[in-house]
Parts: sequence; structure tokens; C-alpha cells
Amino acid sequence: MAEGCELPCLSPGRIMRPDDANFAGNVHGGIILKMIEEAGAIISTRHCNSQDGEPCVAALARVERTDFLSPVCIGEVANVSAEITYTSRHSVEVQVNVMSENILTGAKKVTNKATLWYVPLSLKNVNKVVEVPPIQYARKEQEEEGKKRYEEQKLDRLETKQRNGDVIFPIINPEPHTVGYSQSSLIHLVGPSDCTLLGFVHGGVTMKLMDEVAGIVAARHCKTNIVTASVDAINFHEKIKKGSVITISGRMTFTSNKSMEIEVFVDADPFVDEARERYRAVSAFFTYVSLSKEGKPLPVPQLLVRALCTGLRASGASPAAAAPGQSPAGSAQHILFPSIIQQKNMRGRASGLVGFAFVIFTPVSIET
Amino acid sequence: MAEGCELPCLSPGRIMRPDDANFAGNVHGGIILKMIEEAGAIISTRHCNSQDGEPCVAALARVERTDFLSPVCIGEVANVSAEITYTSRHSVEVQVNVMSENILTGAKKVTNKATLWYVPLSLKNVNKVVEVPPIQYARKEQEEEGKKRYEEQKLDRLETKQRNGDVIFPIINPEPHTVGYSQSSLIHLVGPSDCTLLGFVHGGVTMKLMDEVAGIVAARHCKTNIVTASVDAINFHEKIKKGSVITISGRMTFTSNKSMEIEVFVDADPFVDEARERYRAVSAFFTYVSLSKEGKPLPVPQLLVRALCTGLRASGASPAAAAPGQSPAGSAQHILFPSIIQQKNMRGRASGLVGFAFVIFTPVSIET
Amino acid sequence: MAEGCELPCLSPGRIMRPDDANFAGNVHGGIILKMIEEAGAIISTRHCNSQDGEPCVAALARVERTDFLSPVCIGEVANVSAEITYTSRHSVEVQVNVMSENILTGAKKVTNKATLWYVPLSLKNVNKVVEVPPIQYARKEQEEEGKKRYEEQKLDRLETKQRNGDVIFPIINPEPHTVGYSQSSLIHLVGPSDCTLLGFVHGGVTMKLMDEVAGIVAARHCKTNIVTASVDAINFHEKIKKGSVITISGRMTFTSNKSMEIEVFVDADPFVDEARERYRAVSAFFTYVSLSKEGKPLPVPQLLVRALCTGLRASGASPAAAAPGQSPAGSAQHILFPSIIQQKNMRGRASGLVGFAFVIFTPVSIET
Repeated sequence: MAEGCELPCLSPGRIMRPDDANFAGNVHGGIILKMIEEAGAIISTRHCNSQDGEPCVAALARVERTDFLSPVCIGEVANVSAEITYTSRHSVEVQVNVMSENILTGAKKVTNKATLWYVPLSLKNVNKVVEVPPIQYARKEQEEEGKKRYEEQKLDRLETKQRNGDVIFPIINPEPHTVGYSQSSLIHLVGPSDCTLLGFVHGGVTMKLMDEVAGIVAARHCKTNIVTASVDAINFHEKIKKGSVITISGRMTFTSNKSMEIEVFVDADPFVDEARERYRAVSAFFTYVSLSKEGKPLPVPQLLVRALCTGLRASGASPAAAAPGQSPAGSAQHILFPSIIQQKNMRGRASGLVGFAFVIFTPVSIET
Repeated sequence: MAEGCELPCLSPGRIMRPDDANFAGNVHGGIILKMIEEAGAIISTRHCNSQDGEPCVAALARVERTDFLSPVCIGEVANVSAEITYTSRHSVEVQVNVMSENILTGAKKVTNKATLWYVPLSLKNVNKVVEVPPIQYARKEQEEEGKKRYEEQKLDRLETKQRNGDVIFPIINPEPHTVGYSQSSLIHLVGPSDCTLLGFVHGGVTMKLMDEVAGIVAARHCKTNIVTASVDAINFHEKIKKGSVITISGRMTFTSNKSMEIEVFVDADPFVDEARERYRAVSAFFTYVSLSKEGKPLPVPQLLVRALCTGLRASGASPAAAAPGQSPAGSAQHILFPSIIQQKNMRGRASGLVGFAFVIFTPVSIET
Repeated sequence: MAEGCELPCLSPGRIMRPDDANFAGNVHGGIILKMIEEAGAIISTRHCNSQDGEPCVAALARVERTDFLSPVCIGEVANVSAEITYTSRHSVEVQVNVMSENILTGAKKVTNKATLWYVPLSLKNVNKVVEVPPIQYARKEQEEEGKKRYEEQKLDRLETKQRNGDVIFPIINPEPHTVGYSQSSLIHLVGPSDCTLLGFVHGGVTMKLMDEVAGIVAARHCKTNIVTASVDAINFHEKIKKGSVITISGRMTFTSNKSMEIEVFVDADPFVDEARERYRAVSAFFTYVSLSKEGKPLPVPQLLVRALCTGLRASGASPAAAAPGQSPAGSAQHILFPSIIQQKNMRGRASGLVGFAFVIFTPVSIET
């Protein structure tokens, strides 16, 4: 018996259940994201309260881009481990790894490596960020690398904060494989178990709902078994209060031969608190792949580009421009909405086209 | 009623939890409806398998109009009792009563009395309805009264089946207190725990989601604590298969001084099963009331009538007709869409106006 | 960064949420039991599949008596660790420890130390028990002590298997503080996420429901905030299949000054599967204590002894015998039902009185 050991080596994970998975038995990416975030919240809250000082609760500020390296199945055990890898004065970087384990065969696979940033908020005054106790680094370079990552994410968070929220316009009688055909939205009433001790929604709960909407968009588009392949960096600018209604909306923004990119928006409506209007709380891009019954990647139907709103004139979206044959990208079609153009830019892609697309094809245009 | 019956006295209880309730601590009507339906499904499935014959699972066909007689709070125990009160050759009528109990004070209140109709479907062939073993009646009149109820509901189910589904058109930038302002929709991916042994969604799961949407519509309209007051009869014409995506949409159709009527549609999209298009599975009317912090009924803001869709010309909805001052009902405004007119008629209301409203005010009109 | 370490030292636990707790914020004992059992199931299934051989799933056979050493609150983190401490040819003994951690103050408390016995069932043939790979012991005595524990529990399991199931009769208009006043039952339809890969209910799911019923019985009796203090050894003789309906019934059997003992029965009804009648799957005794708002133990109202069932003549339970003043035990009154008498005997209590009570006081008698 592991004596003298505070938490012996075997701290078992969680068995994946049918309700965690889609009809093909693949665990939803959102379930994994929620587990990752809970682990991050625990370890960073623990760390931030480890010295005498104001009691605080760590709130998720950002998740770096995350890949889903291999699918997790019902009956497998998800083992989550978390470690603090950097601290700035007001934030904590946590590295979370998820390993799936088939306890019948013993096979283990790393499924996710995620990096999350937390900010400690005072338990007494939710608007006050408290100071983070510094961690010790084994090697000097670890601190320097961490500082670099910290500066990079700070810049990205600042930039995304300035963006204005896009709105998903509803489409009546959409054609198959257009954006309007698969776009979906979901409303959720924030309950007590969705929230931290401060009474704000856990970041993991939000990400789980975002993945749910993105998955439905992907499934509606290609009508096959779909799984989350990756999530781009997500910034949590605005807290969401208990009792709010949140609307999570998703639309397909891009397809390649084998993958689909879905943009997801989270809007919060603190409707019992009349002082505040509905606001954009989070937005993110999810990438999905389509799988055959044997789990092999399937080709994805190409996204057809149409004017988004019947009421708006799609000035630049001429039939010729939309013809797949004329697209230099060949198998890929990319819809650029004004706000998406900016977002792509910040995400370091398609930046060369931004001004061009933004000026010429307003409000709806095609990247060629 | 059915004496010598296996279950009547049985009264299973469940403690109401924070996630079952709104921010004011009132348990959602949908949670109660789900408990009622589960009790009904158990007792009728058990009865239908009580004699040698094909194994079967009882599927919900209809719930009669149900009133929520008093609100249930977090920490209270909901006691549900169920009894079979009539059997026809292919259907079972179940009476379910719900009593809330404050286990700290011992106070008990009847909260619901619901009547549900189930049809037993063969476990081997879901399209086959098996025969129901007859029950014994204590008095001859019980059988006669049951037969009358059976005939009545059969007629109503037949009539509602013929109705065409209405569609909720999205509104851009709606004004407060219009239909478009509060209308809401939710998507749900049907998971394993939502389903019966036959792989179809439990009626109670559907009703819980319907109540959730109706509640959000009501809360968005009046921005107060709202509770379910009643649900009109609901017919379940179409089964919903595991793995489907269901869209539940709600819109306000009527306000009186103290109550709101919300119409809710359930559309199922069996998207992995390409043989079938999206279809209307269920629709119903929920009535909500608004409560003060002390639990007293509050006045409800009147529903403002506007043209529903920017793209559609609301020919008959002239400004004059829309003026509240001209409404003889004074405090009540009733929007009649073509399909709703028919529905109101069948529900025994607004019947005198139907032809008139239908002809004159198309596609959007006001009951005066 | 803990390199070379498969699961770095920090494998965070689970945050306790509002739905896990009662209205006073104390986490239900059943939630903890479910976490303990999941940890045990993972580690023992992993071990039993660690050598080449038939794939198998560990099924819970028994939980030894467990004390709840300190209450866990909403917002605290429950850390679970598990270790295999003995293996026989066909069973695995697992020791699970639960530690609650207040991540704001850093305070940690051991809340539970549980011992569970698992039996590996073949994945292909659920009725076949496969062989367990032996573990290595650090010291020779560990094996001997384990063997002794193994023999003891085997004997106890054998004895309890022979017991006849008692039935809880419903009482009409019970008086306060009698058995009938607080007895309660709950029905649960077994869903997919309640089950293991073999399609049988997880032992932890059953224990959570048992604790829920026991908690309702305790709260009805003393109308205060109550918490689980301990659970007697529980044997799982019979598996419960997916799709079954389980009825969990509880009744108070004993009160001391500060505690209540509640007997809980689990009956399974595989109601669409005609081959089998309803059967008793599990039974157990839970001990609860009553707490003040400050968390201090409160005196418990004494259990009043009345004939249990209106339909039965309680021959020996004369008013004189029931008078509290005449009870030599003073503060304790113990109802002995025939089946309970046997159980008490096996649990090493009240053994001198068994034959006597059983013969003279049928069917309900009092321990004096």
C-alpha cells in the first residue's frame, strides 16, 4: 500500500458512457474539452490559493488550439493529468493531457494535449483579479519560453477582443450543402451545476455546448458519422452569469477534401437582469472530419456558396466566382464574411487576401 | 378504479435538485412531465407484458391537457403514482398523479393529475402494435366512461394528424414584446438515455425539451420568474429515432392579463438515415404565468403584433387592425396564423372567427 | 514538467456541484459511493485484463462496511485513489480512499476508506467467471491477511444469499415517527449510461439510488438536514440488466439518540423479458445522522413501533411492549422483522434474542 504517498499512483479516470458518445460510439469532443477544463480549473484554483491571500477562483481566459489526436470510445477510460507550466502576475498556464485507455486490451493513446490560461478572480469581488503565486522552474529556459507564450496569447486575446460580433442570419428553405442548410443554434438555460463557486459558467460547460452545435452542423452537412478533429484557440472575454440564457450558433465556413470548419458563436442574455443587453461571450472555430463505419476518413461534400440573407444583396458573389472549377484552391471553398476575414487574419491564415476580399466582396464573398 | 392492479399504491419519490429548477427555485414543468411519462411508460409496459405474448414496449401516443396546480421547489420530494384506468384492444390509458412533499414540514400538495395513452409496440417489429390484455373494472360504468374517453381522444388524434405543420420564420432585429422578439429554438442530438428499448425517444424527454423552449420564450417576453401553468393535449404521431437531431421551436401566440400561451413545434431530422426528410413530430401549446419574487402572479406585457417575416408582405395586418385599443378583448391579443386558426378551432376556442380570420387576414392576422 | 511519468502526480479529482448535494450543501453519500465504485471497477477490470486471456469486465460483488468520516461540500474537490490489495482465483479486493479538498483553503480530509470485491465476468459469456492474475505482495503477511478477509467476506456473502427477501408494505395514514410514516420508494428505468460494457447496472449506480431513498426516509423521519454516516456491507448477488425497472424501497429499522438505521431493498423487474420474474437484487443498511444548520449532530426523534401493515395482525406487538419507557435500551428502539432478525444476527448484533423474537413476536417485534 503506497504509504507516505498523499495521492497514490492510481487515481483512476472516468469511464466513457453511451451518453458521452455519438451513435457510432465515438465520444464527443465536447465531453473531453469539459474534462480538460475541469482539471485545469482545479489545479489553477488550488495553486492560486496556495499562499495566504484573498480566496479566489480561477476563471478560464483562453484555450490554445487543441487537436484531437485519436477518437475515444464508449467503455474506454479517460485519464486526465494537469500541470502548471507558467505563471505571470495575473494568470496561470496549465498543460492538460488526456490519455484514453482500453482497460480490456491495455492499449493507451494520447488523445489531447491542451494548454489553458486561467485568471484568478477574488471570491469577494468577482471583478478583482488577485495575484498569482509564482512557480519554480526546473530550468531557466522554461520560464523564458513560458513568458514568450504568455506575450503571444495576450496579444491574440487583445486583438480578438476588438472584433465585433458577427450575426448568423437565418435562411428560409436553404439548398443542400449551403451554409444556411446546416447552420444550427441551441439555447441553454444556465443552471447551478454549470457554474463555479462565483456563479459564472465553467468554460468547459460552454465548450461542450459549442462542440455540440458544431457537431450538429457538421452532421447536417455531410450526413455521416463525424468527429471533432481540432479546435482553434478560444478566448473567453466575457463571463456568463447563472440564470442567463445562452444561444450557441454554428455555421460552416469552409470545407476541404477531408474536413469541415465550423464557426461557433456564444451569445449570453442575462434576461432577468435588465441592466444588460444580450452580448457575444465567446466565438471559436471547430474542425470536424467525416468517418466511415470502419472509422476511415470520408470525403466531405463541398460547401456551396450562396448569398447568406435573402434581404441582402450579395454584390460580389457572381455565379462565375462561385463556380468550383474556377477556384484555385481546387477542392476547397472558403466563404469570407467581413468579420471572418478579420478573424482568419488574426489566426494567421489567408491574411494576404483580407483587404482585397474585404473591399471587393462585401458583404459576402468567396476566397479564390 | 382498477383494483387488484399491481402498481396503484406505489409512490416512488425523487428529490428535486437545483438543476431541475429555475433561478427562483421552482422546478421546471418539463421535469414533472418527464417523471409522469416515465411512470406511465413503466406501468403500461409492465401491463402489456403481463400475459404470454410478444414482448413489447409501450410508446406514448397522447397526453391529455394537464394543469400544474402548484409549483414544486428544490428540496421537495415529488411522489408519482400511476394506475391503469382503461384498456382498449391496442391502447392503455394511465392516470398519473404527482404530489409534492416538503419533507421538512411534512406539507403535501397535489401538483398534477395527468392522463396518458400508450400503445404497445412489438420489441421485434416496431411497426407492429400488439394486443393489450384487458383489465378488470370494479364497476361497469368505469369501463363505459373509459370507452367514451377513448373514443374522444381517438377523434382528436385523428383530427390533429391531418393538420399541416406551421413553420416558425426567423425575425431580424425584432422589437420587444413582438412574437419574433421572444421566439426561440433549440437543437438536441438524441442520445441513448433519451430512448426506450426500441431506440425511440421517450415521450417524456420530448415534453421536457418542449417545456424548456416554452419557458425561455416566456422568460424572454416578460423577463421575470415564469412557471408552467398548463399544457394542452399533446399527440405523438411520429416516433423519433435514436441519433436524430430534433429542433424544438417556440413562439408566443397569445397573452392575457396574467398568462402567456406558447406554441411549441418539434421537428425531427433523422440525418444519418437519408431515406427520410425532416418531419414534424409533435406540436403543443403551453401556458405560462409570471410570478413575483414572493410567488404572486404578475401582469404580463401584452404581445405586440407585427408582420412576421421581413420577406413576406403581411397583406391583412394593417396598422389599424394591430392597434391594441381596437381590440374588444381589451387585455388579450391573439395572433392567428393559418395553421393556428385550425388548431384553435379543434381545441374548441376561437371557432366563430376561423373562416373570417383565415380569409381576410392572410398570412398574419389579429383576433378581434 | 514531470517527464518520464506516465500520469504525472497531479490527476485532479472532480468538483462537487449543486446537484450532488442536499439543500444544506452536503454532498450525498451516494455520489461518493458511485465515485468509489467507478474507481474500483476501472482498476479491477484493468488488472483482470493485464495478462493474455479472455477479455472480461469486473462486476461488483461486495462492498465492505464504509464510514463517511466527514461531510463533503459543494465546490470541494473529491480525490479518489484506488489500489488492489488482494486477489483470489476469482476475485479482486480493491481499497479505495476518498479525500475531499477545499481548493480555496487547501484543507484536506479523508472522507472514506472503502473495500470492494470484484469478480471478472467474461465479455463473451457473462455467466463465466474468468481467472484473476495474482498480484505481488510486498510482505508475506499482506497475502495472509488478505486471504483471511477473503474467507470472511465469502462466508458472509453465502449467508446473506440464503436470506429471504422482505417486502415493504404500504401504510395508509401512518402516524409520525412510525416506520410507515417515513418509508419510501423510488422507481428507476435502467438506461444505457447506468450500465457496464456487459449491459448490467454498475454497482455504483445502484448504491447511489439506495442512498437517495435512505436519505428521503431519514429526512421524512426527522425533518432536518441529514447526512449518510455509514453503510453496512452490501452484497450484490444478482445482476440487473439494461432495460429493467428497479424499485428501491427503504424503511427505518432503528434509531439511537443520534442516528437512524434505514434498510434499503432493491428489486429488479426485467419486465419486457418474460423469462424472469421480479427479484430481489440487493439489500443494505444505511446509517444517517441529523445535523443542525451549523453542522452539529442533533438528537433524533425515536422510532415509534406500530404494526407495520394494516392487513397483518401484529400479535406480539402489544402497546405495553411498545412503550418507550419500558425499553431497557433507553434511547434505542429496534424493530425486528423476521428477515431483519436474521440479518442482525449475521451482522453480529442482537444475536441472543433472535430465536426468541422470531418465535414470539411475529411478524413485528421489539428488541428489549
